Amino acid sequence: MSKPLAISMGEPAGIGPDLILSLYARRAELDLPPFCVFGHVEFLKARAQRLGLSLDIAAATPAEAAIVFPSALPVVPVEGLVADHPGKASPLAAHAVIQSIAGAVEAVLSGGCRGLVTAPISKASLYHAGFKHPGHTEFLAELCARGGVAKLPVMMLAHGKLRAVPVTIHVPIKDVPGLLTKELIVDTGRIVAHDFKQRFGIANPRIAIAGLNPHAGEGGAIGREDLEIVAPAVAELQFEGIEAIGPLPADTLFYPAHWAQYDAVLAMYHDQALIPIKTVAFEDAVNLTLGLPIVRTSPDHGTAFDLAGTGRGSDKSMLAAIRMADAMTAQAS
Amino acid sequence: MSKPLAISMGEPAGIGPDLILSLYARRAELDLPPFCVFGHVEFLKARAQRLGLSLDIAAATPAEAAIVFPSALPVVPVEGLVADHPGKASPLAAHAVIQSIAGAVEAVLSGGCRGLVTAPISKASLYHAGFKHPGHTEFLAELCARGGVAKLPVMMLAHGKLRAVPVTIHVPIKDVPGLLTKELIVDTGRIVAHDFKQRFGIANPRIAIAGLNPHAGEGGAIGREDLEIVAPAVAELQFEGIEAIGPLPADTLFYPAHWAQYDAVLAMYHDQALIPIKTVAFEDAVNLTLGLPIVRTSPDHGTAFDLAGTGRGSDKSMLAAIRMADAMTAQAS
Repeated sequence: MSKPLAISMGEPAGIGPDLILSLYARRAELDLPPFCVFGHVEFLKARAQRLGLSLDIAAATPAEAAIVFPSALPVVPVEGLVADHPGKASPLAAHAVIQSIAGAVEAVLSGGCRGLVTAPISKASLYHAGFKHPGHTEFLAELCARGGVAKLPVMMLAHGKLRAVPVTIHVPIKDVPGLLTKELIVDTGRIVAHDFKQRFGIANPRIAIAGLNPHAGEGGAIGREDLEIVAPAVAELQFEGIEAIGPLPADTLFYPAHWAQYDAVLAMYHDQALIPIKTVAFEDAVNLTLGLPIVRTSPDHGTAFDLAGTGRGSDKSMLAAIRMADAMTAQAS
Repeated sequence: MSKPLAISMGEPAGIGPDLILSLYARRAELDLPPFCVFGHVEFLKARAQRLGLSLDIAAATPAEAAIVFPSALPVVPVEGLVADHPGKASPLAAHAVIQSIAGAVEAVLSGGCRGLVTAPISKASLYHAGFKHPGHTEFLAELCARGGVAKLPVMMLAHGKLRAVPVTIHVPIKDVPGLLTKELIVDTGRIVAHDFKQRFGIANPRIAIAGLNPHAGEGGAIGREDLEIVAPAVAELQFEGIEAIGPLPADTLFYPAHWAQYDAVLAMYHDQALIPIKTVAFEDAVNLTLGLPIVRTSPDHGTAFDLAGTGRGSDKSMLAAIRMADAMTAQAS
């Protein structure tokens, strides 16, 4: 019997539970692989009723999930309180949100599930409850380290074969040049190269590396970082046998005929990676984490509090996240 | 008889002359409006021959151009030496390149031509010859000031109704936060609003203003500039009656259904404006200058030295630049 994917329910006041329920309702039509949700049976039943979805929801272990899946949404129960108040986030739910993530990660690490799809969380609600990680991804890296030293998690946005990795992420633009080091770019490039071999079956991934400055610095005329930081990082990756190319001007890199020559693009900051992805794929881009011992995908959007409980949110990105996690772990199913 | 557009020939070792000649050769098929080139008859004849284009080229004044245009490419002669050495830029050509631009600008300012289309120049070659302007656009602003104080020229990239204006341009990322002032954003927004009324016939243009930092700073959690610089600029523009909206997260702003709600997007730096434009329109985006007393467009690419003289360069962007200048000056034709 095939192993399920693990799905963490995300912020209960957000759109995550809605998307999980609406996709489950269309499981046959969409030919979805079996999955189990780490969450609360009663809460999910209440949300399904609110959405007008008539479906069965049943407590199950990961080992039972594939058998249960055709007839009922398998839910692996987690500790904590959760109430069905769409749009009204409460720190009281934080424990359940965290337990959902922790339980799902542990199920994949222990081999009970084959990959992780996370629904969006609200960092603000978690911070109020004492959550100390900069974000979802860093928390996952810590959980995967099981008490050891967490590895560098690498965020990648993907839409078909357009895949962009921001080397720095949620930091102000003014801090980007100082945070950008040769080591950070090299470490990121190594993880991308490693995971592309292991997870995507691409033996020699071609990695384009964007310049930091306009026109990749125009030989030093527009800033020195591309000469002094980015170019040496490219050289070091090449020395290690990785097909790294750059620094390339970021503005012309995302023309389809150009990026199509590469398996991934390393961008130097958040918007340099996310603008091109969202320009071509607002609704169905996927957020992946590389550098972890498990496969993890998530939709490329937030909690959308204003749409929670309405049934009007698009489930395309969540669907794409499930499909990508499925494809990346097919050999383990 | 209709007034011609003025075209500056650009760098003679680059692709500009090729594009002008190939478009002129297809003038009937493309139904092009009359234009005249500020340049050298003998040089253009040599380049046409190299490209295998059989066409007549004749010296003409702007006043004669529309009559000459159906039978010969009208060329308004300019001073200086130019040789047909594709790909081999020489400072010896700098004087002619500069005279071509100056002559074309003067012809539009004086009413002999109705709008300006500039072919790409090589700043490096001009700098070697003592050119002191940061770029093509700043030089045009000075020429238009006719010895007075040049106004702030504003660069806009356009592809259909997607129009993006970088508030800072060819500067290193590390200098962007320091260069970004409320005044600069307000001045830029005013010019955009003014020119949209005057040049595009849009009475109340809606101008989206992107945030500098990821997620437009997330309320101050990711940098203070969006709160302290961008938001006050938006408020001031609104106070003046301009429909400015922002700061908006840059990554979600360029999704078609989102930007389509605005007439223009003000981006805070080069790549924030150019990545989305080039992602959707690499070959036929147009570069416009706002804030000048004349209409000026240009192709959105450089000299492409490696393609000069080969006939393999795409003329789509140059064609789009001619069409846009034509449309924007139709009432003066």
